[in-house]
Amino acid sequence: MADNEVYQYSIISALVDGVASHGTPISRVLEHGNHGLGTFRNMNGEMIVLDGEVYQMKGDGSVLRIDPEETVTPFATVTRFQPEVTSKDTISSKKAFEDILTGLFPKARNHFLAVRLDGVFRKIVVRTAGGQIRPREGMVDVCSRQTTHTFENVTGTIVGFRCPQYVMGVNVAGDHFHFITDDRQRGGHILELQSEGEVEVAAAQMSTFYMELPTEDDEFNEAELRLQAQSIKSVEG
Amino acid sequence: MADNEVYQYSIISALVDGVASHGTPISRVLEHGNHGLGTFRNMNGEMIVLDGEVYQMKGDGSVLRIDPEETVTPFATVTRFQPEVTSKDTISSKKAFEDILTGLFPKARNHFLAVRLDGVFRKIVVRTAGGQIRPREGMVDVCSRQTTHTFENVTGTIVGFRCPQYVMGVNVAGDHFHFITDDRQRGGHILELQSEGEVEVAAAQMSTFYMELPTEDDEFNEAELRLQAQSIKSVEG
Repeated sequence: MADNEVYQYSIISALVDGVASHGTPISRVLEHGNHGLGTFRNMNGEMIVLDGEVYQMKGDGSVLRIDPEETVTPFATVTRFQPEVTSKDTISSKKAFEDILTGLFPKARNHFLAVRLDGVFRKIVVRTAGGQIRPREGMVDVCSRQTTHTFENVTGTIVGFRCPQYVMGVNVAGDHFHFITDDRQRGGHILELQSEGEVEVAAAQMSTFYMELPTEDDEFNEAELRLQAQSIKSVEG
Repeated sequence: MADNEVYQYSIISALVDGVASHGTPISRVLEHGNHGLGTFRNMNGEMIVLDGEVYQMKGDGSVLRIDPEETVTPFATVTRFQPEVTSKDTISSKKAFEDILTGLFPKARNHFLAVRLDGVFRKIVVRTAGGQIRPREGMVDVCSRQTTHTFENVTGTIVGFRCPQYVMGVNVAGDHFHFITDDRQRGGHILELQSEGEVEVAAAQMSTFYMELPTEDDEFNEAELRLQAQSIKSVEG
């Protein structure tokens, strides 16, 4: 794949429906990108792919570096990230950052964006999904037990995507960001953020989208994957 | 692209919102497949791609063979079709055919299917969209003026796709078939069908999906492309 094309394995609706027992080797996902988000078997933690390295941010707050040959993912989205726009911005909130991003790409409402922020953050609130307690437990129930962590004055990186509204169900419509600290010891799915002065913002528009569906996975094949926009919004928005 | 991968240009929601003034050269679409469906600028007629040849089935009932270098499409879906399953079936209705297809691929409810039928049909009812009467006129209004034609005892080919429920808005969820006669003189979007004895059914499951969005098209960029499942179902279902 070329730079700044979206690759995703499976669909977010499968997680909503609790399809998370199997997956594809993460090494296969990395063939398509070095920057992205995802989860692990049984929704056990949040995945961040940063410069081609993969980390699992677990519910207990710990972070593991993952061997992509040894680990599978039931859902992940990556791109070969090549920033098209860079800026330095002071960010007062997640909403304020979303407005900055819209300002950087005023004509991209119907396209995908890849995003990266680097710098010092006064405050970042993350959640981490702790995993299914039984097979087929849905994402909303899994996330009802999520742990949240607040980090203050941390240096780190945010990796994320903006997806257009019409892909809701296939992926997460809107903004979806994960964070990891520079020492790779803490991180999670971002609920709120505030920078300490200016941080580096890098982003790119993406106009091609490639999706690979599970084929030999009976759990996926048998699930009734209906569009559950409200459920996705409630836990990923 | 490999055999039996889905390629689509733009999204069905763009047509719903009347985005049909521009498009991509059909020759570029054909790089990704030789079998498929679509439409033309201003939704002027139904497109069928059969063995790599492209035909425009117009509202007045006429059929034109299209030069893919000279013509653009605002929305099309194709695959490099390689049948995985073939059978001979007598088909009593569109619904009955849909049940046959489900029986051929019992584990594919969350995947895409490509379909082709060849044979003699006792009766086929088609509609043909006659095109926008003003820029940005939406698909529902365009199709409110559709013409329908009933063909009896005709020999021809049906080309189509089944898409999973979760892609509604991106493409047409469910079944979507176009028909063209052997003499390439008549055809359209299938509303009803009945075979004359057995016809040849060929189909394949598709598990990878590739989508390319318009980039330099302000009409696309500025449209508010929200999911309008009911509108799509009303005209394409």
